Amino acid sequence: MKNIVEEILKAKKEAGGIREVYFVACGGSLGAFYPAKVFLETEGVKLKTGWYNSNEFVHNIPKSFGENTVLILASHKGNTPETVKAAELGKERGATVIALTWIPESPITKFADYVVEYSFGEDKDIGEEKTMQGLLLAVEILKQTEGYENYDKFMDGVSKIDLIVKKACKLVRRRAEAFAEQYKNDSVIYTIGSGAGYGAAYMECICIFMEMQWIHSNAIHAGEYFHGPFEITDREIPFILQLSEGKTRALDERALAFLEKYGKRIEVLDAKELGLSTIDSAVVDYFNHSLYNNVYVVYNQALAAKRQHPLTTRRYMWKVSY
Amino acid sequence: MKNIVEEILKAKKEAGGIREVYFVACGGSLGAFYPAKVFLETEGVKLKTGWYNSNEFVHNIPKSFGENTVLILASHKGNTPETVKAAELGKERGATVIALTWIPESPITKFADYVVEYSFGEDKDIGEEKTMQGLLLAVEILKQTEGYENYDKFMDGVSKIDLIVKKACKLVRRRAEAFAEQYKNDSVIYTIGSGAGYGAAYMECICIFMEMQWIHSNAIHAGEYFHGPFEITDREIPFILQLSEGKTRALDERALAFLEKYGKRIEVLDAKELGLSTIDSAVVDYFNHSLYNNVYVVYNQALAAKRQHPLTTRRYMWKVSY
Repeated sequence: MKNIVEEILKAKKEAGGIREVYFVACGGSLGAFYPAKVFLETEGVKLKTGWYNSNEFVHNIPKSFGENTVLILASHKGNTPETVKAAELGKERGATVIALTWIPESPITKFADYVVEYSFGEDKDIGEEKTMQGLLLAVEILKQTEGYENYDKFMDGVSKIDLIVKKACKLVRRRAEAFAEQYKNDSVIYTIGSGAGYGAAYMECICIFMEMQWIHSNAIHAGEYFHGPFEITDREIPFILQLSEGKTRALDERALAFLEKYGKRIEVLDAKELGLSTIDSAVVDYFNHSLYNNVYVVYNQALAAKRQHPLTTRRYMWKVSY
Repeated sequence: MKNIVEEILKAKKEAGGIREVYFVACGGSLGAFYPAKVFLETEGVKLKTGWYNSNEFVHNIPKSFGENTVLILASHKGNTPETVKAAELGKERGATVIALTWIPESPITKFADYVVEYSFGEDKDIGEEKTMQGLLLAVEILKQTEGYENYDKFMDGVSKIDLIVKKACKLVRRRAEAFAEQYKNDSVIYTIGSGAGYGAAYMECICIFMEMQWIHSNAIHAGEYFHGPFEITDREIPFILQLSEGKTRALDERALAFLEKYGKRIEVLDAKELGLSTIDSAVVDYFNHSLYNNVYVVYNQALAAKRQHPLTTRRYMWKVSY
């Protein structure tokens, strides 16, 4: 990432450098960019950032989109039509286009100035997966433009996350089985999260429960929960709550305290218990997403098996035209 | 608004003017700021903007929050603790604090440099309600800093919106009754929206269906629908779809075409049919929210009556401690 950002800054020196970083993708790929967006929103001073569904972006292009923009896209197979279109637009407007994809020779790479591959699959290195590559780009851009005082701490976190996640996945295996048994007949399961980890709650909601299991869901923001959504709470409705590590943990704790009083069927994913606290507190917020997103996989596999509804089942996606 | 922004710019001249505009609130008040956030994201070039739940904001303060920030808050009764806390923080950090509230002598006003009241209730003027006051602040700030070429068109829209909304509410009265009859026994109802109007879908989901009717819901972004959520579609599940006027209408049309093929129980709110197109196409996107948010009221009243579940019913909000 270091070299990519150095090259961009060199190429854009005359034109005024980097002013905006837009993260544009669809569904799970968009969710994977959530921590990077929160990172730049929180740590950046002058840099503008945006986080858009690709089709929203190409239909309603921000006025500032142009040669000072770094457009960071993700498409797993590199062929999501709306995201390829965004890449094409980026090229037309003189933006720097960076495409994250698992398939390096895919359609999106035609319009990309840089192609970043990521680790994926059973044996992936969590420090090199999609979410982390997006974050690393954001961190490197901030460091080389405005500076980022916690850069070394962040890189230390990157070096630790793979082991933390793999231990955590082992730790939840039994409780994931129990969860699957208890919730296999539910038609609604909510997720709750906050901070940079909220993206994992969003992905679990739309990609797993809704898409892969046909279970109704909503990713409720832990702070927003008390301003509407909490009224649906009762002793029947299940919630998965991300008790995150870092600055917004207080929001999650408040939601949990309420749920423990008025709800009953609550699955808590506690980042502290799952080992995330070995990462420095100045940067730990940005690692919640990777932890949750991967721990969920253990739950998802158990749930799919128990429900006899494989995670690969679709009725529309890739099957009909849309 | 003109005078407020002139005064801010005068006061902040030495310090470097306005660099960030943050919209911070909870639940419905946060939803009401959605069009203003999209406006600045889309039309602004240098100005940074952010849209935060108040509790998220006060726990994870952006580094750029300070004397060059305009912090725009909303709290209906002016006493939402998290939002009052955000106002206090704004004061401490030297930001300009603007509080939108219905009750001018409320706790939040203690920390506000400016208090903006808005029209509310049965006979409210839509051109002066909360959403529009937030938008007007955004428009005025952009005009007086970077300039906004469509300012006059926007103000023309503001002068038209009250009549458009009131006609639309009459137009949907009968179909709202039919909707209430058809959906009175449903336990899940989804909303779908895009663009600056998405905030209305969010508010309907969290404030009405979940909070006031205890119906499960999720506000699905029309572009994201095809990347996960659409898999829950079948001929039983109800959707309310906002067919918006403006640049992202194509996204809504795509979702509608799919729903018409694979779903059955779809209520369409078509902004074109409801009269929004008399507003200039350069600015019309930003008026969808006000139209939907008010047309929903007709549906909500009909649904609540038919379900014998008054919109004022709560089990937790303002009743227990949380």
